[in-house]
Amino acid sequence: MHVVVNAATSADGKLSSRRREQIAISGEKDFARVDRLRADSDAVVVGVGTVLADDPSLTVKDEQLCERRREQGDPEQPARIVVDSTGRTPTDAAIVDDAASTYVCLSEAAPVDRRMDLADRAELVTAGEDRVDLLRAFAALEAAGLERIMVEGGGELIFSLFEAGLVDELRVFVGPTVIGGRDAPTLADGDGFVAEFPTLTLESLERVDDGALLIWRADG
Amino acid sequence: MHVVVNAATSADGKLSSRRREQIAISGEKDFARVDRLRADSDAVVVGVGTVLADDPSLTVKDEQLCERRREQGDPEQPARIVVDSTGRTPTDAAIVDDAASTYVCLSEAAPVDRRMDLADRAELVTAGEDRVDLLRAFAALEAAGLERIMVEGGGELIFSLFEAGLVDELRVFVGPTVIGGRDAPTLADGDGFVAEFPTLTLESLERVDDGALLIWRADG
Repeated sequence: MHVVVNAATSADGKLSSRRREQIAISGEKDFARVDRLRADSDAVVVGVGTVLADDPSLTVKDEQLCERRREQGDPEQPARIVVDSTGRTPTDAAIVDDAASTYVCLSEAAPVDRRMDLADRAELVTAGEDRVDLLRAFAALEAAGLERIMVEGGGELIFSLFEAGLVDELRVFVGPTVIGGRDAPTLADGDGFVAEFPTLTLESLERVDDGALLIWRADG
Repeated sequence: MHVVVNAATSADGKLSSRRREQIAISGEKDFARVDRLRADSDAVVVGVGTVLADDPSLTVKDEQLCERRREQGDPEQPARIVVDSTGRTPTDAAIVDDAASTYVCLSEAAPVDRRMDLADRAELVTAGEDRVDLLRAFAALEAAGLERIMVEGGGELIFSLFEAGLVDELRVFVGPTVIGGRDAPTLADGDGFVAEFPTLTLESLERVDDGALLIWRADG
């Protein structure tokens, strides 16, 4: 399994404002890059916080990319995965629509009625007691044939993936704006590290749109 | 007056861990770059939070840079400035030692005994009722001959400077590590913007040490 985290942040490292409203950070070229990365993935992952805040569909938008996937014998769209410890994904969320298959990763703490609602619309993967055990959940996803994984946020999930040692690559588009805010979501939230900080190797940096694309490989 | 904000962040935009412990983010080349930037400045500014957390001296370390300043008729060291609404700077802080002259910017809310303590060791600039009025304080500093200003943090001060429209340039070294933490200090904290986000223009990006140096010009 190969896990790529992809995100766009403001110049000060924020994913959105403290109101959790999405802000146009990147431009057309970065949008196309993200679409290609999705098309090259078996599945695209987000945390439930992102589902509740942004209701993303996570589908590949470029028809030609979808066509190429079909030609390669892949499903037209990559699968979607929600990490959702207590089953808060709404049944009318775009991520569980018919545009692609969806996996919802739950913990044992997800109530039975929520499981039943979601089971109609997604494959359920249960791992962990109160929170999703990401190592076990991702092992189950790999066993289901999902090898190339792209993560699109939010900051809580990204931190948990670094904590679990599951991140292979981090791609960050840093955009030409300042959002600020001690309560605004950042690229990696959670409790944060206080020792043994994960280290990275800078693979490339380039100007994209009006910002910078930094590609990091996770060490070790 | 020309105000350059300089900071080193982790790949996820943090200045330090949630414990506010400084973490070695940059390397030797970036250290030398920061020293040169200090030497090219009339004054180096920090917020009192940074004084309390890190006790920085903010002096130029390279003897040759100090020598060049003397040759140009400048003081050997740039002045230091603390933005400190209520006068919390300790009298034994490195920033008020004899290595360079120091200005402490206070609001009217700073108690008289703290003013008296600090008046022995620094020039006091008072502007604003409960918080330092940065526009007025910086106008007073400019009137005192301080034209080239470098800001070294922390995130609260940097946000306030963007809010006041005082930032001309933002230089960020993004280092090869992940710190994480929803409560860790970021490049721009404060309340955060929710509309009319300040926009930037990317002047340059280059690899420095094991990270990336992004230089942004503030628009408008």
